[in-house]
Amino acid sequence: MREVRDPVPRPGEVLIRVLLSGICNTDLELQRGYHAFSGIPGHEFVGMVEGPEGSPWKGKRVVGEINLACGRCDWCRRDLGRHCPKRTVLGIRGHPGAHAELITLPANNIYIVPSEVKDEEAVFVEPLAAACEILDQVEVAAGARVAVLGPGKLGRLAAQVLADAGANVTLVGRRRRVRSQAFDIVVEATGSPEGMPRAIELVRPRGTIVWKTTHRQPARFDSAPLVVNEVTVVGSRCGRFEPALELLAGRRVAVRPLLSAEFPLARAVAALREAATPGTRKVILRPGV
Amino acid sequence: MREVRDPVPRPGEVLIRVLLSGICNTDLELQRGYHAFSGIPGHEFVGMVEGPEGSPWKGKRVVGEINLACGRCDWCRRDLGRHCPKRTVLGIRGHPGAHAELITLPANNIYIVPSEVKDEEAVFVEPLAAACEILDQVEVAAGARVAVLGPGKLGRLAAQVLADAGANVTLVGRRRRVRSQAFDIVVEATGSPEGMPRAIELVRPRGTIVWKTTHRQPARFDSAPLVVNEVTVVGSRCGRFEPALELLAGRRVAVRPLLSAEFPLARAVAALREAATPGTRKVILRPGV
Repeated sequence: MREVRDPVPRPGEVLIRVLLSGICNTDLELQRGYHAFSGIPGHEFVGMVEGPEGSPWKGKRVVGEINLACGRCDWCRRDLGRHCPKRTVLGIRGHPGAHAELITLPANNIYIVPSEVKDEEAVFVEPLAAACEILDQVEVAAGARVAVLGPGKLGRLAAQVLADAGANVTLVGRRRRVRSQAFDIVVEATGSPEGMPRAIELVRPRGTIVWKTTHRQPARFDSAPLVVNEVTVVGSRCGRFEPALELLAGRRVAVRPLLSAEFPLARAVAALREAATPGTRKVILRPGV
Repeated sequence: MREVRDPVPRPGEVLIRVLLSGICNTDLELQRGYHAFSGIPGHEFVGMVEGPEGSPWKGKRVVGEINLACGRCDWCRRDLGRHCPKRTVLGIRGHPGAHAELITLPANNIYIVPSEVKDEEAVFVEPLAAACEILDQVEVAAGARVAVLGPGKLGRLAAQVLADAGANVTLVGRRRRVRSQAFDIVVEATGSPEGMPRAIELVRPRGTIVWKTTHRQPARFDSAPLVVNEVTVVGSRCGRFEPALELLAGRRVAVRPLLSAEFPLARAVAALREAATPGTRKVILRPGV
């Protein structure tokens, strides 16, 4: 923990007072050396826009897309700033994050939170958008047999999003027995290098594995069944915020059961420790206390 | 090498006298223990149907699909017997292979070779079909930037098939320098666990890697860029024979430059050794001498 100067919004940016921030497994991985990040972590938040003076956003309750894109490259022109090669990423790469009282973000990154969505729900928009990304990438037929590996935060969000889309979802923990090759789609959200071999075992020939986990250790698995069974693996990361806000506003997913604990920002170190405890779900930080 | 009794076709099968068989890297992998196969290897061939008496196939020059499917399951009904869970595979799993004078195959697996296609070309139909499979799985836009990793037999066939489909193809050997993230599609056909990390380096965000290599060693690579860049990996194996025969009949691919050597079947042991020598391309066996 340390005191830093208040950030100053650059042209096109807004200043946001953080109401709540969520601790993601990526924050824990960054702590362990992933991405060689140093600085303020945190990329899940809900906040109030405080400035600059005269901004039409001022006083709005917002969430924010975490990729700060150049706005001019091919990716940005195709509305895929999430892949802009020049991007910085809130709390992950080159831009100070949301485990803080104040942050800055480009106004283009901001989404207003509908009044029916509470702060404790809005703080889930970023990971929920990552779960929604699956639907943008993979066709999920009604009744599709889907296994979600890893009953953690992201896994439980993905399971809800896929069930809402009409899939027949099985949430698979480490010890749950399920039949080999029984699933059309397997979402690998274990956070562990052990997830991929399990996913390959469970997916049917010509099925799809959605690979959500990032970890520091190299992936290691027998690739022959993947090739022989012509499995498709789709790397999947951040998603659009709009569908996530719609799901929350429409009460089509329940995120509050995923809340494990709330800490004041001043106790962020203890909060990170708590978040790293096996079995803990979402831990959130509240700067304003 | 050993003498075995002539195989006897079962109901629905034909007896084929092998004219030529091709040595595939998979044969070498089987020798090294892949798939725990024992028996006669060989799954690339061209031959003449000799029996049974009265078969309409008798006297026809043919090539044959290597997967012997049950014909009754869901996969078979969808014309995807290549994924039939009960299948045996010529020279790979449960069915004696083509490095022999005579083989049997279900008549359903047989394709007549057009007269304009020479024996030395027809023996390439099976690996060429595996190259054509890429076009059945992945949309290849005209002018798509495609890298084929591994300038071996399969890599060179894939490069030709993709160029014929209108792609802008670069064949990439181990030492060739190419720009990172410069390719829409990367075909991994190196035969080595080193191929996948290279493919991840070369493919653009949201691009596609076609994974052709099977090897005994586990795959091992940093998976984070694959997930973060939302790359799609498509396992790709055997393909339909029709497009391969069409490409050969239409002289749209040149397979004879891939021929390295021909051995009589009696010298199969030396031929396998030759095929395993780095830099060697296709080695074929001729039983009739």
